[in-house]
Amino acid sequence: MADLVTLGEVMIGLSPPNRQRLEQARSLQIRLAGGEYNVAAGFSRLGGSSIFVSRLPQNPLGRMTALKCREHGVDASRIVSSPDERMGLFFIEHGAAPRATSVLYDRRSSAFSRARPGDFDWPAIFHGARWFHLTGITPALSESAKQCAWAALNAAREAGVSISIDINYRAALWSKVDARRCMTPMIEGAELFFTSLDETRSILRIDGDEEEAAERLMDSLSVGMVLFTRRETHSSQRHIWSACAYTREGVHRSREYDLEVVDRIGGGDAFIAGFLFGQLNYDAPRALDLGAAFCALKHTTPGDLNWATLEETQRLAFESGSLRIDR
Amino acid sequence: MADLVTLGEVMIGLSPPNRQRLEQARSLQIRLAGGEYNVAAGFSRLGGSSIFVSRLPQNPLGRMTALKCREHGVDASRIVSSPDERMGLFFIEHGAAPRATSVLYDRRSSAFSRARPGDFDWPAIFHGARWFHLTGITPALSESAKQCAWAALNAAREAGVSISIDINYRAALWSKVDARRCMTPMIEGAELFFTSLDETRSILRIDGDEEEAAERLMDSLSVGMVLFTRRETHSSQRHIWSACAYTREGVHRSREYDLEVVDRIGGGDAFIAGFLFGQLNYDAPRALDLGAAFCALKHTTPGDLNWATLEETQRLAFESGSLRIDR
Amino acid sequence: MADLVTLGEVMIGLSPPNRQRLEQARSLQIRLAGGEYNVAAGFSRLGGSSIFVSRLPQNPLGRMTALKCREHGVDASRIVSSPDERMGLFFIEHGAAPRATSVLYDRRSSAFSRARPGDFDWPAIFHGARWFHLTGITPALSESAKQCAWAALNAAREAGVSISIDINYRAALWSKVDARRCMTPMIEGAELFFTSLDETRSILRIDGDEEEAAERLMDSLSVGMVLFTRRETHSSQRHIWSACAYTREGVHRSREYDLEVVDRIGGGDAFIAGFLFGQLNYDAPRALDLGAAFCALKHTTPGDLNWATLEETQRLAFESGSLRIDR
Amino acid sequence: MADLVTLGEVMIGLSPPNRQRLEQARSLQIRLAGGEYNVAAGFSRLGGSSIFVSRLPQNPLGRMTALKCREHGVDASRIVSSPDERMGLFFIEHGAAPRATSVLYDRRSSAFSRARPGDFDWPAIFHGARWFHLTGITPALSESAKQCAWAALNAAREAGVSISIDINYRAALWSKVDARRCMTPMIEGAELFFTSLDETRSILRIDGDEEEAAERLMDSLSVGMVLFTRRETHSSQRHIWSACAYTREGVHRSREYDLEVVDRIGGGDAFIAGFLFGQLNYDAPRALDLGAAFCALKHTTPGDLNWATLEETQRLAFESGSLRIDR
Amino acid sequence: MADLVTLGEVMIGLSPPNRQRLEQARSLQIRLAGGEYNVAAGFSRLGGSSIFVSRLPQNPLGRMTALKCREHGVDASRIVSSPDERMGLFFIEHGAAPRATSVLYDRRSSAFSRARPGDFDWPAIFHGARWFHLTGITPALSESAKQCAWAALNAAREAGVSISIDINYRAALWSKVDARRCMTPMIEGAELFFTSLDETRSILRIDGDEEEAAERLMDSLSVGMVLFTRRETHSSQRHIWSACAYTREGVHRSREYDLEVVDRIGGGDAFIAGFLFGQLNYDAPRALDLGAAFCALKHTTPGDLNWATLEETQRLAFESGSLRIDR
Amino acid sequence: MADLVTLGEVMIGLSPPNRQRLEQARSLQIRLAGGEYNVAAGFSRLGGSSIFVSRLPQNPLGRMTALKCREHGVDASRIVSSPDERMGLFFIEHGAAPRATSVLYDRRSSAFSRARPGDFDWPAIFHGARWFHLTGITPALSESAKQCAWAALNAAREAGVSISIDINYRAALWSKVDARRCMTPMIEGAELFFTSLDETRSILRIDGDEEEAAERLMDSLSVGMVLFTRRETHSSQRHIWSACAYTREGVHRSREYDLEVVDRIGGGDAFIAGFLFGQLNYDAPRALDLGAAFCALKHTTPGDLNWATLEETQRLAFESGSLRIDR
Repeated sequence: MADLVTLGEVMIGLSPPNRQRLEQARSLQIRLAGGEYNVAAGFSRLGGSSIFVSRLPQNPLGRMTALKCREHGVDASRIVSSPDERMGLFFIEHGAAPRATSVLYDRRSSAFSRARPGDFDWPAIFHGARWFHLTGITPALSESAKQCAWAALNAAREAGVSISIDINYRAALWSKVDARRCMTPMIEGAELFFTSLDETRSILRIDGDEEEAAERLMDSLSVGMVLFTRRETHSSQRHIWSACAYTREGVHRSREYDLEVVDRIGGGDAFIAGFLFGQLNYDAPRALDLGAAFCALKHTTPGDLNWATLEETQRLAFESGSLRIDR
Repeated sequence: MADLVTLGEVMIGLSPPNRQRLEQARSLQIRLAGGEYNVAAGFSRLGGSSIFVSRLPQNPLGRMTALKCREHGVDASRIVSSPDERMGLFFIEHGAAPRATSVLYDRRSSAFSRARPGDFDWPAIFHGARWFHLTGITPALSESAKQCAWAALNAAREAGVSISIDINYRAALWSKVDARRCMTPMIEGAELFFTSLDETRSILRIDGDEEEAAERLMDSLSVGMVLFTRRETHSSQRHIWSACAYTREGVHRSREYDLEVVDRIGGGDAFIAGFLFGQLNYDAPRALDLGAAFCALKHTTPGDLNWATLEETQRLAFESGSLRIDR
Repeated sequence: MADLVTLGEVMIGLSPPNRQRLEQARSLQIRLAGGEYNVAAGFSRLGGSSIFVSRLPQNPLGRMTALKCREHGVDASRIVSSPDERMGLFFIEHGAAPRATSVLYDRRSSAFSRARPGDFDWPAIFHGARWFHLTGITPALSESAKQCAWAALNAAREAGVSISIDINYRAALWSKVDARRCMTPMIEGAELFFTSLDETRSILRIDGDEEEAAERLMDSLSVGMVLFTRRETHSSQRHIWSACAYTREGVHRSREYDLEVVDRIGGGDAFIAGFLFGQLNYDAPRALDLGAAFCALKHTTPGDLNWATLEETQRLAFESGSLRIDR
Repeated sequence: MADLVTLGEVMIGLSPPNRQRLEQARSLQIRLAGGEYNVAAGFSRLGGSSIFVSRLPQNPLGRMTALKCREHGVDASRIVSSPDERMGLFFIEHGAAPRATSVLYDRRSSAFSRARPGDFDWPAIFHGARWFHLTGITPALSESAKQCAWAALNAAREAGVSISIDINYRAALWSKVDARRCMTPMIEGAELFFTSLDETRSILRIDGDEEEAAERLMDSLSVGMVLFTRRETHSSQRHIWSACAYTREGVHRSREYDLEVVDRIGGGDAFIAGFLFGQLNYDAPRALDLGAAFCALKHTTPGDLNWATLEETQRLAFESGSLRIDR
Repeated sequence: MADLVTLGEVMIGLSPPNRQRLEQARSLQIRLAGGEYNVAAGFSRLGGSSIFVSRLPQNPLGRMTALKCREHGVDASRIVSSPDERMGLFFIEHGAAPRATSVLYDRRSSAFSRARPGDFDWPAIFHGARWFHLTGITPALSESAKQCAWAALNAAREAGVSISIDINYRAALWSKVDARRCMTPMIEGAELFFTSLDETRSILRIDGDEEEAAERLMDSLSVGMVLFTRRETHSSQRHIWSACAYTREGVHRSREYDLEVVDRIGGGDAFIAGFLFGQLNYDAPRALDLGAAFCALKHTTPGDLNWATLEETQRLAFESGSLRIDR
Repeated sequence: MADLVTLGEVMIGLSPPNRQRLEQARSLQIRLAGGEYNVAAGFSRLGGSSIFVSRLPQNPLGRMTALKCREHGVDASRIVSSPDERMGLFFIEHGAAPRATSVLYDRRSSAFSRARPGDFDWPAIFHGARWFHLTGITPALSESAKQCAWAALNAAREAGVSISIDINYRAALWSKVDARRCMTPMIEGAELFFTSLDETRSILRIDGDEEEAAERLMDSLSVGMVLFTRRETHSSQRHIWSACAYTREGVHRSREYDLEVVDRIGGGDAFIAGFLFGQLNYDAPRALDLGAAFCALKHTTPGDLNWATLEETQRLAFESGSLRIDR
C-alpha cells in the first residue's frame, strides 16, 4: 500500500563519458531510466511511499533494476520477472551546441513491452493509493502494454485513485496521430495533466496559448489541473525552466530557474514527483514551487534520478537560494 | 580480393571492470566480438588480406563496428548495412575461481541474424580467395543465417576456395542434436576442421581419443586436417594450452603454453588466424607453431582481438621466449 | 518482522585502486563494511528477510548507508539517525605478498558507538525473528555499544530467538583479555558460535585441536554448535578455505575451496549469512555447504558484499563447479 | 587513387584530464593530431576518398598511428616507416579563462621531419587525385620536409591536381619572416587558400580588411579562392565561429555558430575537410556551409578528429538545427 | 628560516567526480586543504620560502600530507606528528546552479585541534621570518588551537614579524559572536587584514562601504592595510572576481577577472599568497595585481593548490592576457 | 650536505593500464623513473639524506620531476635546468606470460644526456657525503654524460666518499663490449658493486659461479663488496628474489622472497637504497636483510618508487612476516 502507483518500463541507458560520440567510446556509463520509474523514485526520495509496477527479465540486468528501485525506496514487490526476456536499452550521446543530445533506442521486445494485464494484481496494487501516474510511453510500447495501461487506469478509477498523465511524446515510438488517438481518452477526466505548449499543439492539435489550451483541456477533456512546463535551451549547459499550473480557480506560476545543466534527462519527471508529493502535503501553489525546485535540483547531478533531499528542495522552493559554499 | 573470407556476426560486448558483477557495475567496457570477425582481424594483423562479410545496423554502433574492422586491416566493403536494425549485444562477467566467467546474450533479432543470401555478391567476394572460414555460430543464429552459411560454402566450393570449419558450440543458441545435424554436412569435405575432444564427443558423438576422432573425421567426413586444441583451466588466470594437427601424413604437436591469462576470449580464434596465415606462408608444422604462439599472445591482452605483431609471434613460435624485460 | 536480526556498526571503507599505497593515491574507492551488516545483507541476498539495527549520522554518508541497506533488501527501518554525528571510517591498503593488507581505522566517536539501549524498540525488533547475530566488534566499540549488545541479547532470549556469535577479534579495538572477559558470557548458551582455532586459543584460551575446543565450548559454555573456519593464505590472491561444523551429534566438513581472491574482506560474514540461511531452509550439513559456497563466491568480487545469487550458490554447493565460460 | 592527397606529420598528443596542469597529472589521454592528417580523415569521414602521405617510426606508436588512419578510412598505404625513428609528441594543457590552452611540443627529429622527397612515389600518389592540401607546418619542420612539400606541390601541379594551402602558422616552429618567405611561393597559384585576417596581416603583411586582403591574394598571388575563418573566443567554452569565401565572382558568408566548445583543436581542419568535400560534390556556397557545419560539430567532441556523419552535417548546414533531444 | 610562516590545520578533502552527490558516489577524489597551508604552498610556488607549522597523525594520511608540503616546496620540518591521532576530513559536493557547493566536515578531534603551544619551538620558527599569516579557522578549532594561535602571534610580534590575518569565517565551527570576540584582538595591529564586505558587516559589525570599513579598521584596530575581495557568483562556472587594497596612503584596485571556474576552493588563499609574495618583491599595487592574477589562475585548475608559475602569473598580472592557444 | 649522492637521468615513463598494448591504449599512466633517482628517493624514504644530481628541461615536465624529488625527500637543489631541452621518455607495455614486459625508449637528446661536467659544483655536492652511487646507464647515455660520471667519481674519491656501482646494462643504449670497456675502470676500487651472475658473465666476461666471480672482482678490480641479486621469473606476477653479499670476510645471504609482483620496475634500485641505508646504520648482514625487504616491498606497489616505511621494512627484514590483515 502506497500513496503513489506508477506503471511503466525501466531501461538501462548507456552513455560515453566526456561528450564522446558512441563511435569513439571505449566505455559506457550505466543509468536506469524510465519516466514512471523516475517519478516513483523521486516521490519516495522526498518521503512519499510509492509502488512501481513493471516487468523485468530474470537476469543480472533485471536484478540490478529491481535493486535500484529498492535503493531509492520504491516498493518493487509488484514487479514481475520472467526468464528468457530482455531489458530495453538505449544509448545516449550527450550534446554540446550546436549538436543536440541524441538517443539511440534498442528497446524492442523488452520484457515490459510483453507484459499483459493479467500479470498484475491491480486491486491489491491500488489498495489505499492516492495517485496513479502514467505517461504516453507505456501505451506506445506495444499493444499489450497499452492494455496494461488501460487495465491500470480502470483499476485506479475503480479504487478511487486520482489520475496523473504526462504524454511524453516519443517520435521513435509512434506517430503524432497515433499518440493523439490513444492518449485523448486516457487524459479524459485525469486530475492532473502534465504537458508543454509544443505538445498540446503538435500532438493534441489544440491551438492557442497556454491559458487557452488549459481551458480547452479542462472543458472538453474534464482535466482537473493542467501543468505546463517551459524550457528555453540556451545551450546544452544553460536552460531556463519554469512551470505553470492552470486550475479552474486560477493560475500559479513557479519561479523561473536559470540552470547550469549537468544532466537534463529526468528533469520533467522530477517536477512531477515533486508536484505530486506537494499536492499530498501542501496546496497547489506550494506543490508547484516544490516540483519546480526538485526539477531544478535534478538538473545539477548526473543520472535520471534526483538525489536532492526534501530539506534542500524546501529551502530552494520556499526560501531564497544562494551559490555560496555552505561551510 | 583477399586471401581469407569469413562470414558471421560481430557483437558488442559490455563488461564491468575489475571482476565486478553486472549488478554492482556503474560502467561497462566495450569490446567487439565474433568468432569469424576475430579470425579475419587476426589474419590481417599478421599481414594477410581478409574480407569480413556481415550485416550491420545503420547506426553509431554499426558504424563503430565497421570502423574497427578497417582499423584492423579487414576489408569491410562487403558488409551490408540497413536502417532499423539492431546490433547483437552481450554482457560478460569475468570470473575468478570458483566462479566461472559468464556471458549474458542479448543477440536475438540482430541485423546479421536477419541477413539473407541475396544480400551478398558471393562470386565477387570469393574471387581469388584461398580460405573460407566459418563457425557453427553462424548457422545457429537463424534460419536465414543458415542459408547464408550454405550460400557461402557453396560459392566457396565453386570458386575453388578451401574451407575451414570451427563448430564453436554455444548452448545458448541451439541444442547439441541440432548442432550435429546442421554441422555434419558443413564439415564434410572441409580442408581444415578445428575442434576439441569435448566437442567431438558431445556434439559429433565421436568417441575415442584425439587420434581416433581425427581418423574418423578424415575417413567418414573427408576432412583434410583436424586440429585439436586443449585447454587446462587451473584458475581464471592460469591456463595450459596446446594444439595438435592430425593429417593423413601424420601428427604435429605445438609447444604447451603456460599462460597468465588476462583475457581468454578470442584465444581460439587467434589460433585459427595464425594457423591459416601459417598455412599460406609456411608448412603445417610451422603453421601450428605460429597459430599456437599467436593464441598464447592473445591471452595476454584485454579484448577479443590480438595486438601481437608477426615478428613477436614468430619470435615466440620459432625461438625460445623469455620473461625478462626487453630494454 | 524478519527471520534474522543483526546489530552493529557500518563503516565507510576507502581504498586506493590497483594496490596503491594510501600515500600515493589520488582517489579512493568507497565500500560499506560491517560484520553484522554484511551478514544481514548476505542473508537477504539469498532470499531471507533481515533487519539491521544501527545508528547513523543524519548526513549524506549516513543516508548513503541506509540506501545501500535497502538496495540489498535489508530492512533499514530500525536504524536510528541523529544530526551532529559522524560515520566510522577506515582506509584499506590491499596487499601483495610479502605485504599484508592493512587497515587504518578512523572510527572513534562514530554515531553507532554512541548508541544507547533506549534508542531501539527491542521487543518490536525481535518480534517473530528466528536468529540474532552478533560479533565481538559491537561490544568492543564503547561502553554504550556493549550495553546495546546486552540489551539485544537479552531481548532476543526473551523473544525465544536463537543466538549466533562471532568473536571477530580486532586488536585495534581491545586487548585479548578484555575480549575474553566480555565475550565469554555472551557466547554462553549461544546456538551457534563461529570461530577459528587461532581465536579459540588466543582469545578464549582453549587449547587443543578443533574437536577438543568445540567440545569444551559445547560443554562448559553450552554452545549449541561450533563452526570453525580455516584459511590458508598462500598469497594475497590464492587462499584455501574450508569450514567445519561441530555439534553434539557429530562433525560436518565443507568442501575445501581453492580461491582466486579478488577481495577477501567480508568472506567470513558471507559464510555466516549462507549458513544461517541454510539452517532455516535445509539441515546443518547442507547449511555448511551453502555457507562455504557463498563464502567462496564472495571472494571473487570486489567489495564487502556478496553479489552471488541463491541459484549460483546452490549450484556450487550441491553440484560440481567448472571454470568453463558459461555461454 | 583518391580524390584528396595530403602530406604532413601526425603527432601523438598527450593531455591531462579535467583541466589539470601537467605538473599535477597522473595519467594522460592520447590523441593523434596533425593538420593534414585531420583534413584527410575528415574528408574520408564525409564519404570522400583520401590518401595521407607521411613517414612513421616502426614501433608501436607508429603502428597505432597507421591503424587510426585506416579506422578513419584514410588510405595509409603511402605512409613509409622506418626503424630507429621517433614520433613527434606534444603535451596539451586545456585552459579555462583567463588561462589559455597551452601546448608543449617535443617533435624535434621526428620520423616525418627526416623524410626525403625520394621516400615517396609522387606520380602514383597523385594519379587521379582532385585536391592536394598542404599546411605551413610541413615546410616549417625541417629542410628535408620543405623539400618534400615542394616535391609534392610540383608533382600535384604536373598531375593537374588543384592545390589547397593553409599557413597554420606555429610560432614554435619558425619566425614570421621565415614563414612568409617560404609560404609565399607555395601559395602562388593555389586554387584555395585558407587563412585568417590575423595571419594575412602578421605573416603575409597584407593590410586591409578581409575583402581587400582577399583581392590582393587573388591579384598578386593568383589564388583562386580565399577562405577567411573568424573565431571570437568569449571563454574557453564559448566561441563564435564563421567563415567567408572570397572568389572573383563574389563573396559567400557562412552562418555564425555560437559554439559550446568541448575541444577546439582540429576545428579549422574540419572546416577545410568539409569545404573540400563540398567543392567536389556541390557548389562553393554550399561547400562553405558544409565546411562550417562540419567545423562546428567538431568543436562538440573531444579529440582532433570529427565523428559527425555526413547526414548530421548536412542537416545542420542546410536545415535549421535544434538542441532538443532527438528521441 | 623562511620568509613566511603559517600555522594551521590541513585536512584531507574527498569529493565525488563529475558533480555527483555523495550518496551516488563510488569513488572519491583526494585533495589536501587548509587555508594557511594553501597560502604557504602558493607562496613557495611563486618562489618564496615558507614554513608550515602544524600537527599530524603518524599514519599514512599524515605522511601523505607532509610529503605534499615538501612537493610544493614548503618547509615541513616544523610539523609535529603523533601516533593515535586522526586527520581532519571533509567531503565536498561540487554544485551547479541553483545548487551550491556544499561541504560536510568531519574534523572534530583532529591531530591539529589537539596541538598545544608547547609542541612548537616558536623562536626558532620565527627566526628571520618576514610574515606570519593566520586565519580565523585556527582559533575556532579548539581551545588549545586558540592558545597555539596566540602563542604564534606573540612570538611573531616578539621576533618583529609582520602579521597577516584572514577571518575566513566558518559557520560550522563557531558563531559570529564568538568569531568577533576572538578575532578582534588578533586583528588589532595586524599589518595586513584580508576580508570581504560581507565579513566586516556580519562578523565585525562594521557598517558602511568598503572604504568606510577599511578606515574604521585602520583607525580603531590599527590595521596597516585592508584588502577587500569581491566575488560575484553568476553561476558555479562563472565568477567575476576583483580585489582592492586600502592603505592610509590610498586605494588600489585590481583588474576585474571574468573567470571560468574549474575549482574555486583555495582562490582566496592564492590571492593572499600572491599578495604576500608581491609585497616582499614589489610594491603594494603590483602585489595586488600579482595576487589577483594568482587567484584568477587558481580558479582554472582542480584542487586547492595553484600550479601556475611565477612567469605565467606575472604575464597575466602585468601584461594583457589572451585565450589563444599558445603554440 | 647529504649522506648519499647520486647522479643520473630521470625519465617520464608512460604505460597503458590493465596490460593493454600501446596500440590499443587511450590513456597512459605517468611514472618517473631512473635508477639513480630511485636509489636516492628510496634512501630518503627510509630516513637517510640524499642529493640527486641531474639536468632537466625548464618546462612543466621538468618541473614535475623536480617536485617529485622533493616529495620523496630528495635534495633537488643541485639539479640544473635549461630551456629548450626535452625530457627523456619511455613507454612500457606490462607483460603476462609468455609475453615479456617491453620498453620503448624515446630518450635521445634528453636534457641530461647533454649535461656537461662544468654544469655542477662537484666539491659542494660531495661535501660531507658518505656514498656516491652510479649506474652504467649514465655513461651509456652520451659522451658528455660519461664525462659527468667521471667528474663525479673523481670528485667523490677526492672527498673521501665511498663508491657504489651498478652496471644496470641496457642493450638499447650500448653494446656489451662498450659497456665492459667503460665500466671496468669505474668499478675498479668501488666499495660496493651490485650485479648479477648474468651480468658478470655477459658484460664483464667473468666466468664461474657467484663466489668465484665475487672473488675475481675483489681481487682484480679491488672491489670492497660484491652484491649479487637473483631473480627467478616464474610468471609476470610471481618472482622468487634473493640477494647475497660477498666480502673478504665472508658471505651473507638474504631470505628468499616469494613475491606477488605488482610492478617489478625499480626493485633492484630499492635493494640498493635499502642496503646503503643499512650500511650506514647497521652492519652488512642486516643491511642485506633490510635491502632485500625493501626490494620485496617495492614489488608490491605500482610505480618505480617505494612507499614502504622504515618500520614496515624492519618488521619484514628482522621479524617474521604474515599475510593476515592487520586490523
